[in-house]
Amino acid sequence: MIRVVLVEPEGEYNVGFIARLCKNFLVDELYIVNPKVNISEAIKFSAGGKEFLENAKIVNNFNDAIADVDIKIATSSIADNKGDILRKSIKPWELFPLIQGKRVALIFGRESVGLTREEIFKSDFLLHIPANPSYPVLNLSHAVGIILYEIWKNRGILNNPQTSTISEHSIQLIDKYTETLYKLLKRSDEDYKMYIAMKRAIIRGVKDEEEARVIVHFLRKLYTRIIHNEKEMSNVS
Amino acid sequence: MIRVVLVEPEGEYNVGFIARLCKNFLVDELYIVNPKVNISEAIKFSAGGKEFLENAKIVNNFNDAIADVDIKIATSSIADNKGDILRKSIKPWELFPLIQGKRVALIFGRESVGLTREEIFKSDFLLHIPANPSYPVLNLSHAVGIILYEIWKNRGILNNPQTSTISEHSIQLIDKYTETLYKLLKRSDEDYKMYIAMKRAIIRGVKDEEEARVIVHFLRKLYTRIIHNEKEMSNVS
Repeated sequence: MIRVVLVEPEGEYNVGFIARLCKNFLVDELYIVNPKVNISEAIKFSAGGKEFLENAKIVNNFNDAIADVDIKIATSSIADNKGDILRKSIKPWELFPLIQGKRVALIFGRESVGLTREEIFKSDFLLHIPANPSYPVLNLSHAVGIILYEIWKNRGILNNPQTSTISEHSIQLIDKYTETLYKLLKRSDEDYKMYIAMKRAIIRGVKDEEEARVIVHFLRKLYTRIIHNEKEMSNVS
Repeated sequence: MIRVVLVEPEGEYNVGFIARLCKNFLVDELYIVNPKVNISEAIKFSAGGKEFLENAKIVNNFNDAIADVDIKIATSSIADNKGDILRKSIKPWELFPLIQGKRVALIFGRESVGLTREEIFKSDFLLHIPANPSYPVLNLSHAVGIILYEIWKNRGILNNPQTSTISEHSIQLIDKYTETLYKLLKRSDEDYKMYIAMKRAIIRGVKDEEEARVIVHFLRKLYTRIIHNEKEMSNVS
């Protein structure tokens, strides 16, 4: 269960964009603590995520927004200042193992001043998105987007362990036609390299069965074109 | 070298936010093709990334924006429709090995209708951010943010043994010869698929410069064999 918590957001467009992102990345709940924006203005920026604003839970204080979750993740663009244990951060790609299977609140502070130290203290971790050290401050909704994307990505990758393989039949045909073409062109013993390099590159690089079939078709047409021409030529001579 | 290319952007806030993201994630250049927004309005949303809008290169057509880069990455929220080779996509986390050490253009389409098929065709890969299947359409600047973050993350994490990339020259030659061969074989408009699938599989799959050169040699020999035969035939007849 993923809950996004916005603490005193100040920009209509950010609140709207975040609702849209909640829909894009299948968030479960949106909580807003003491909003400084007009929600009906924000809806204009929410596109297909409008329902998240219509159903957003508006609360008056921070504690109400983090009640009944298992793990609370504060966020900040200021992190890892030397000697400041509270601001030691985890990175977005370290988040998933911590929250997997749990009820999590992802907590985002005010555009102007972020979260207070007290709010960070009440949370379990501080998450920081690394960026250009000379200007690391992301706009609020863009930070939300990156973190939700990173969680979504990990959910998806875990569910399907890379089953994008191509059939043995297509591998055989790629092998056969690259070999046949190389034999047509072969001048020296060194030329076997053409066959090996091409075959391997294609088999490594091909994305799925559909792409494999198009490539086999291409190789076969190259072959028949050469053979066809050379038959014609031998008929003439 | 990373260039962000916006094609006919329509929203001031998006253009401004993207300038800010360019600064957050150390982009090198911002190109805008035929902007539909007022740039000075957009600057209001750019915060610390103002300089990217002041220095943005405004061009009149798509080709000018992708000149002089090594690899062109189109983006779309519509991808992987069955049977559509052109829209087969790579994912953000698959991008870095393809662009490492190269001059790359990351190309983003119009908020309303995205990139045209012709614009995707002129690019080398189509990148797609996976999201909620029932509402996968991200707002433009949020898509830019996620992709720039993913590149930034990889730059930082790797830092960087994996420099087994191939040269821009080899990419150009692979592109050129697969396109030339496809044109020799072309019978129907559908046949562009052969070119797209073959080029992408080889560029993805090729392991190093040595292998790339052998493959280019193979493609060139296939081409000269066909051309040579057909010259002979036309001399005879």
